[in-house]
Amino acid sequence: MKKRIYYHDTDCGGVVYYGNYLKYLEEARTEFLEEKGISLKDLMDKGLWFVVRKQEIEYKAPAYYGDILEIKTFLKEITSHRIVFLCETYNQKGIFLNKAITDLVCVDKNLKLSEIPSEISEKVK
Amino acid sequence: MKKRIYYHDTDCGGVVYYGNYLKYLEEARTEFLEEKGISLKDLMDKGLWFVVRKQEIEYKAPAYYGDILEIKTFLKEITSHRIVFLCETYNQKGIFLNKAITDLVCVDKNLKLSEIPSEISEKVK
Amino acid sequence: MKKRIYYHDTDCGGVVYYGNYLKYLEEARTEFLEEKGISLKDLMDKGLWFVVRKQEIEYKAPAYYGDILEIKTFLKEITSHRIVFLCETYNQKGIFLNKAITDLVCVDKNLKLSEIPSEISEKVK
Amino acid sequence: MKKRIYYHDTDCGGVVYYGNYLKYLEEARTEFLEEKGISLKDLMDKGLWFVVRKQEIEYKAPAYYGDILEIKTFLKEITSHRIVFLCETYNQKGIFLNKAITDLVCVDKNLKLSEIPSEISEKVK
Repeated sequence: MKKRIYYHDTDCGGVVYYGNYLKYLEEARTEFLEEKGISLKDLMDKGLWFVVRKQEIEYKAPAYYGDILEIKTFLKEITSHRIVFLCETYNQKGIFLNKAITDLVCVDKNLKLSEIPSEISEKVK
Repeated sequence: MKKRIYYHDTDCGGVVYYGNYLKYLEEARTEFLEEKGISLKDLMDKGLWFVVRKQEIEYKAPAYYGDILEIKTFLKEITSHRIVFLCETYNQKGIFLNKAITDLVCVDKNLKLSEIPSEISEKVK
Repeated sequence: MKKRIYYHDTDCGGVVYYGNYLKYLEEARTEFLEEKGISLKDLMDKGLWFVVRKQEIEYKAPAYYGDILEIKTFLKEITSHRIVFLCETYNQKGIFLNKAITDLVCVDKNLKLSEIPSEISEKVK
Repeated sequence: MKKRIYYHDTDCGGVVYYGNYLKYLEEARTEFLEEKGISLKDLMDKGLWFVVRKQEIEYKAPAYYGDILEIKTFLKEITSHRIVFLCETYNQKGIFLNKAITDLVCVDKNLKLSEIPSEISEKVK
């Protein structure tokens, strides 16, 4: 996924705010799933959501206004109820910016742990 | 309402991002209503929401990291379905930063125009 | 400009938060200028910025998670120091969502009103 | 630090967006340092910044619109160049929501690793 950096992404340190990367990670894993034919919106209509259980992110270099980031998304693990993504972010010069591991679980409307529908786990694999 | 400015409020121009003021306006009118004994959460539980129909904001001076803003909220108008707020924002030195008019309407779950409950309009006046 | 709506764009009312549109407007006018060969980053490197002086936005219909918005950007006015954009936002079904007028002025590092460089005003027209 | 949850904090899942907690963590550690007599703004004026090197966050329960969160901030570690915070977030009922570890380093304008000024490390301890 490519992502251009605008003013609203940055802070007065002149770089992208550290918390904003979690938005890009959401976008990146949504696009990853869309490419596999999985729509989180359809899942939502069935009363299921993926919620983040744990997030880790290591920042090596900052992004600046006008940068075009590339976020590479990899499936790290999938079990009956959990899905774990690894994302690596690079800038337009190929410089490595950060690495993130997002650990999600599938839940229902009442936030009760639910099984990932088999058609989803098959498409993801 | 007093509001401290953090990194996440600013952009790489070194000042508060113009779009973030709309969040502070939401906070300011929520606090204004809370002070009058009106809870937007209770309203939400009754299936009613105030949604913004029109927003105007004029920026005169910027806010910086570390500033403590003061947002003064005034009721400008209230009718059977509409409520209009005027907010003025100042920094800790009393410098006028911006002025905003927010025009809201009361809607139900299906976003259909609904009457503002009389106990709310009475408390607001 | 096309823009997909993610979770981070929405609020617990189930729709896109009213303040987030100001981010999309920034993106839309940046893309509009880029298409004309104008880089706000280059301008910034010259010590010039466009800052918003006045923002008006009228909301007619909401956007939802998963929507693909289309933002049409028009030049409304350009003078020696000011540039005014009109943006109209539609969803993927062509439904009109909102209309915004953004009034910007060109300033230098000290936020002093500055003339818009002639190569920019020519490219924009 | 106490923090009220507004619409802009939530997403269409009805809960606070997972990425927004990183803003609250910034606010919480800023307030923690302020209480010790340390101003990040003063540090910034000296050409020094704390930047996040690593962020970990584990989510146990969500926050909802209208909640009043309490964020408890602890100093976990401080070395010549690094400072590590542990934050725990609870809601108004005392329910534990999440736990975060933020690992920051002190850098100068060119993002080069810099020593934490001794008056700061002494005040923090």
